[in-house]
Amino acid sequence: MMNTPINFIEKLSKFQDQWSPKVIAELNDYQFKLVKVQGEFVWHEHAETDEAFIVLAGRLKIELPESTVELTAGELYVVPRGIQHKPSAEQECHVLVIEPRGVVNTGNIGGDMTAPNDVWL
Amino acid sequence: MMNTPINFIEKLSKFQDQWSPKVIAELNDYQFKLVKVQGEFVWHEHAETDEAFIVLAGRLKIELPESTVELTAGELYVVPRGIQHKPSAEQECHVLVIEPRGVVNTGNIGGDMTAPNDVWL
Repeated sequence: MMNTPINFIEKLSKFQDQWSPKVIAELNDYQFKLVKVQGEFVWHEHAETDEAFIVLAGRLKIELPESTVELTAGELYVVPRGIQHKPSAEQECHVLVIEPRGVVNTGNIGGDMTAPNDVWL
Repeated sequence: MMNTPINFIEKLSKFQDQWSPKVIAELNDYQFKLVKVQGEFVWHEHAETDEAFIVLAGRLKIELPESTVELTAGELYVVPRGIQHKPSAEQECHVLVIEPRGVVNTGNIGGDMTAPNDVWL
């Protein structure tokens, strides 16, 4: 059993690629993933699950069908299942994503921004 | 649908009691809970679930059967299901706990430190 804590800043120092979540821990069948984002992602949805975003550094915008949520460090937002959303960030932003194991970043839409799933740091 | 982010510091300003987790959001059947802790908790375990701790401010110690984990702000630790653990903090520490809905803070052991469950901020 691991008996050292997981330090977000230390883990974030281990990769540079954007829009490609890295798994750092599991909680039952849920995963904690770190991701660096900048620019515009694609509109997509996850039909089967909610998706939690915690901003660790920078500012994250999440466009929703009828509104836009703007998060800064120390803020959490849960996108409900089945709701179209489009994350974006003007400057690089560091995010902790929490969702069930197996969720693909681009959800129902696929395409060029689809990242390999279940990549561990 | 809520379209504002949840700010941890703002939510933490709304209560003072220690060892009494407050629910701030749900992700499917999981809950995000804020808790202020200081002093020693009781040894206990959760037979059915892992339990995630993210320290937001201060320092948290989690004693385990054969080791002790010490977390500071920006660190995560997941206590595996069925593992005895005892959280403690010398100074007040602010923690984000993530676990399935319905998990009671004192797990299998009950007693005076058992907090009301599912209390929302």
